Amino acid sequence: MQLQFLGTGAGMPSKERNTSALAFKLLDECGTIWLFDCGEATQHQILHTSIRPRKIDKIFITHLHGDHIFGLPGFLSSRSFLGGEDPLTLYGPKGLKSWVLSTFELSNTHITYDIQFVEVEEGIIFEDEQFIVTALELEHVIQCFGYRIEQKPLQGELLIEKARELGVPKGPLLGKLKNGENITLENGTVVYSKDVTAPPKEGFVVSILGDTKYCGNAINLSENADIVVHEATFDHNTAELAASYGHSTNLEAAKIAKEAHAENLILNHLSARFLFPQIQALVTEAKGIFPNTFIANDFDEFLWKNNKLLKI
Amino acid sequence: MQLQFLGTGAGMPSKERNTSALAFKLLDECGTIWLFDCGEATQHQILHTSIRPRKIDKIFITHLHGDHIFGLPGFLSSRSFLGGEDPLTLYGPKGLKSWVLSTFELSNTHITYDIQFVEVEEGIIFEDEQFIVTALELEHVIQCFGYRIEQKPLQGELLIEKARELGVPKGPLLGKLKNGENITLENGTVVYSKDVTAPPKEGFVVSILGDTKYCGNAINLSENADIVVHEATFDHNTAELAASYGHSTNLEAAKIAKEAHAENLILNHLSARFLFPQIQALVTEAKGIFPNTFIANDFDEFLWKNNKLLKI
Repeated sequence: MQLQFLGTGAGMPSKERNTSALAFKLLDECGTIWLFDCGEATQHQILHTSIRPRKIDKIFITHLHGDHIFGLPGFLSSRSFLGGEDPLTLYGPKGLKSWVLSTFELSNTHITYDIQFVEVEEGIIFEDEQFIVTALELEHVIQCFGYRIEQKPLQGELLIEKARELGVPKGPLLGKLKNGENITLENGTVVYSKDVTAPPKEGFVVSILGDTKYCGNAINLSENADIVVHEATFDHNTAELAASYGHSTNLEAAKIAKEAHAENLILNHLSARFLFPQIQALVTEAKGIFPNTFIANDFDEFLWKNNKLLKI
Repeated sequence: MQLQFLGTGAGMPSKERNTSALAFKLLDECGTIWLFDCGEATQHQILHTSIRPRKIDKIFITHLHGDHIFGLPGFLSSRSFLGGEDPLTLYGPKGLKSWVLSTFELSNTHITYDIQFVEVEEGIIFEDEQFIVTALELEHVIQCFGYRIEQKPLQGELLIEKARELGVPKGPLLGKLKNGENITLENGTVVYSKDVTAPPKEGFVVSILGDTKYCGNAINLSENADIVVHEATFDHNTAELAASYGHSTNLEAAKIAKEAHAENLILNHLSARFLFPQIQALVTEAKGIFPNTFIANDFDEFLWKNNKLLKI
């Protein structure tokens, strides 16, 4: 799993940071990419990455502010133009579907693939064999969701040596054991899957939060998460603005991660007022509360490997 | 007057060419800038120029395809965020107003300035002391307009030597004569403005055409124009595609300029299929028909000075 930030700014694009978009790459896990938010020019940012638009099969919108959605019509139509044929599911607050469809109608845009619209409400919004996605409302000036992505436990590895000791021959029986089936050998011996496989490994937990002030649901979504992606639109000097605009400071983001007993925090959605030295200070201050804090810059990519978060 | 191309691609953004937008700079003439079309990420392109969004007080949309309008909501809201307070007029086909307003409503966008919406129909759509703008329908797959901007004749220069010979003293009387007023000197002599001013100079004529196949109205709008901005989405190898998609080739654009007895042609709206050598060929071929042909690349700026078009 990899996270690639396509837009890490707040409100408006700047030369350094585009409006919000985050690619959650599950290419190894299920061959697809999920996109969180789609600010204007997200498709332009993608041109400078290895991401192929047709690989994106789910888009989760946190809220309907322009800096999180104005890139949707363009992205969706280019995905079609570039030969995307696989269906796409678009999760977002009420109102998104009718806006997307009326924009397509106005602009005479014909999409070659199916779009399923899911109007997000609190609770589990997606579940398959591998993942559960839960949404909870955060506290912003308009309705805004945070998402928690839980990977289900991963099948334990097959312990080949043990299986061989018990007399299991090479071939398809090994596969059955790996998949949790018990088998009977030709000599009548029953071999139990649990005896020749390692225990299941825990999957990862990532919380990707939309714009919010410090709130309980940010903690709930981030409980024991491996990675928390949290906005940090303001710093302690501008903390009053944060509260009145429904945003957080770097320190509040760090508190959320700490109180949720999370492993790693990535600060995102940074105001254009912060230049490089101030960005450095944002991280340093946050580390005082939560040591495993990273900053997200446009195009930064984070790899989750062996239960460690690596900036690559 | 200067023309700065902000997006010269067709259909979709590429790394080299953004979707359509053209800044028509009238800073010397009236202190403002007009924008023609506003594809996605036009505001991002503007970040890399000296253009200040609040200086843009008119936007003319040729048609409602996404690559010509998807940057509008973001541009309009950033103009507000950046302190733009002067009113703005948005000219475009029917349907544009309700889409812009519903997009603002959905995204909870509050604009600090007045937007006047003008639903374009054929004929004169704007006239003041300096300019006349005329719209005519072109031939595309959806309704699409071309615009002709005529600068009214410029007041002739005051011939100071002649005025002095006729006994006009230094001071405000000279100003009156320059402004077309006749005056009476203290000795009773009447001095006529026309006797002490050069004849009016012709203003410029620029036609900025939206997406179109070869058509009569492209010629009508470009009649005797100083500058014609014409699309060239295809070339002679792909001429059949041009016709079926409602677009033009480079050679058709050149024919329009020639038949309209225009002075200069700028080829715009180029398919991403054309790489640098092919772009060179597009111009060379067009020059065979119409020698004063230029190509538009993103950020190219053209200056109109002393009745000459200069690429700067």
